[in-house]
Amino acid sequence: MSIDATESASGQERYVGELNEGELLARIFPLLPLPDATLLGPGDDAAIITAPDGRTVISMDTLVEDHDFRLLRPNGHRTTGYDVGWNSAAQNLSDINAMGGTATSLVVSLTLPPRTPVAWVEDCARGLAAAIEGLGAIGCGVVGGDLGAGAQLVVTAAVTGTLDGRAPVLRSGARAGHTVAVAGTLGRAAAGLAILEDGRPLTDFGPDGEQFIAAQLRPQPPLAAGPVAALAGASAMLDISDGLLRDAGRIATASGVGLDLDPGALQQYADPLEGAAALLGVDALDWVLAGGEDHGLLATFPPDRPLPPEFTAVGSVKPGRPLVTLASRATALRGWDHFAD
Amino acid sequence: MSIDATESASGQERYVGELNEGELLARIFPLLPLPDATLLGPGDDAAIITAPDGRTVISMDTLVEDHDFRLLRPNGHRTTGYDVGWNSAAQNLSDINAMGGTATSLVVSLTLPPRTPVAWVEDCARGLAAAIEGLGAIGCGVVGGDLGAGAQLVVTAAVTGTLDGRAPVLRSGARAGHTVAVAGTLGRAAAGLAILEDGRPLTDFGPDGEQFIAAQLRPQPPLAAGPVAALAGASAMLDISDGLLRDAGRIATASGVGLDLDPGALQQYADPLEGAAALLGVDALDWVLAGGEDHGLLATFPPDRPLPPEFTAVGSVKPGRPLVTLASRATALRGWDHFAD
Repeated sequence: MSIDATESASGQERYVGELNEGELLARIFPLLPLPDATLLGPGDDAAIITAPDGRTVISMDTLVEDHDFRLLRPNGHRTTGYDVGWNSAAQNLSDINAMGGTATSLVVSLTLPPRTPVAWVEDCARGLAAAIEGLGAIGCGVVGGDLGAGAQLVVTAAVTGTLDGRAPVLRSGARAGHTVAVAGTLGRAAAGLAILEDGRPLTDFGPDGEQFIAAQLRPQPPLAAGPVAALAGASAMLDISDGLLRDAGRIATASGVGLDLDPGALQQYADPLEGAAALLGVDALDWVLAGGEDHGLLATFPPDRPLPPEFTAVGSVKPGRPLVTLASRATALRGWDHFAD
Repeated sequence: MSIDATESASGQERYVGELNEGELLARIFPLLPLPDATLLGPGDDAAIITAPDGRTVISMDTLVEDHDFRLLRPNGHRTTGYDVGWNSAAQNLSDINAMGGTATSLVVSLTLPPRTPVAWVEDCARGLAAAIEGLGAIGCGVVGGDLGAGAQLVVTAAVTGTLDGRAPVLRSGARAGHTVAVAGTLGRAAAGLAILEDGRPLTDFGPDGEQFIAAQLRPQPPLAAGPVAALAGASAMLDISDGLLRDAGRIATASGVGLDLDPGALQQYADPLEGAAALLGVDALDWVLAGGEDHGLLATFPPDRPLPPEFTAVGSVKPGRPLVTLASRATALRGWDHFAD
């Protein structure tokens, strides 16, 4: 599905192939906030940002058309530029959050088919800006990037962050006896994806369905919770992007411990999904266990530390082999892999 | 042209679609150097690098199959993964060089069609590593990135750098009376591209042709020259990536001055290209003036400062309108634009 076929009705549409790079940049940059950390903003060979404690946290994530998003689905649903921009910002900001840090800047590369409407690109910039503001990434912004042509829409962002003098929260610090806890939502984005990929009209799924679709397209990582967890003494933490079981397995492997999850505690995440799950004939708990892309946090805390209010206990760390169990029973790790079938 | 059609002869080839993300990462990371600035390397949600003077220079560049490189040309020439990896590193490292800085780390996102041979990706990693070492980016390396599937090969790198306490060299500091100077080569990459895109066998162009093709595929930005220029008091500087005239126009615009280039001084760059230009029936000086991708440096220096030995004077800064002239005569700005025809 090519984007331009969906946009040409007005006859007024302008396409990126009709503008030069400077003209397109002049459309985009006014829509984007500059980071507070900016020492030198866009327009030179590179940007310069402050790194107040002498360290820079850095990560990078890419969204590819037809792999990470679909512009038009068989049921008529359109993913907008705004959605893609929001999602790109959200998943990058979430990576800094998962280290216990605060995002300071983004650089963004857009690869655009020449028949991409300029309005789509502007909408993407608005989505980036809205995610930065809406998710509370205070002081963050876009300090530079790259624009180029390609056959397929690709959005790559790199994000920088600061730890404000703290130690990072790694995946490797979980110890037997620690509490396993979650911040943010679980399974809602997976439910939204299932609804989007189902053939039925989206209206069949009601207002809940709309919320789950929004969680898939415009995830809401709990950005305050990462630094809070660091200050509260979290022993391990990561961003749940490939599914709770798979990501729990990463902490288990990195820490050399078992993680036992409590299905009773997880049921509270499945409850709001039961209606949509029944319509689709699937198990809501599967979305909670294997669904990624809500970008919640999975963390472990020593037993003597009170859980911050952003976190909900969902299990405990066990000695022994690095496996993830459900009520002490083995479970196959499931979740998202970019290349596996 | 799909990459797999060129690689399947052995029957032993493995493709990225047959590996999961972890298996592919395990193939790539051992081939890549870790930056000296690494505080936390790959394997967590984000990496952490030092920013010794409390600032981080950052830039990003993307290479797209069939737009920025061609895997197989009509004359049978293959661009290898090694070439693409080298080029990605080189153009990113060059952006830090152009600020007068030293690169500290790269993060790299690879978007790979599932039928990309694993060997191609390994070769790309080797090219990245070889450029870092071969160009003298001492202590730089790859600290993280992203891997995903797409219809087209896309390589995006973000680069960080340090200014070691110095001020950056911007595009805006050129003043009337300053000397305009160049470090590195001019026009060789453009000659290489013209040879690659010509229908004739590459052997028609002899050993010079091979060198020009190498300059196009594996550019050699003069990485030592950026910090040297900063220390020598350069008033403005940028990376010549879109052609001397276009990039000179950027300094002219940012500084509010004219740049007058001396065709006599530029002829020394055209001389080695004359043989290839004659074969192709073009003007070698056009490659020097409008060809990008050698990633040399264009800088201006106050008249009371001796030029560093890495730089060659090619003109002078004039008062008045921000135009680029050749021997005081107007010239149309020409060069590369990603979206313009």
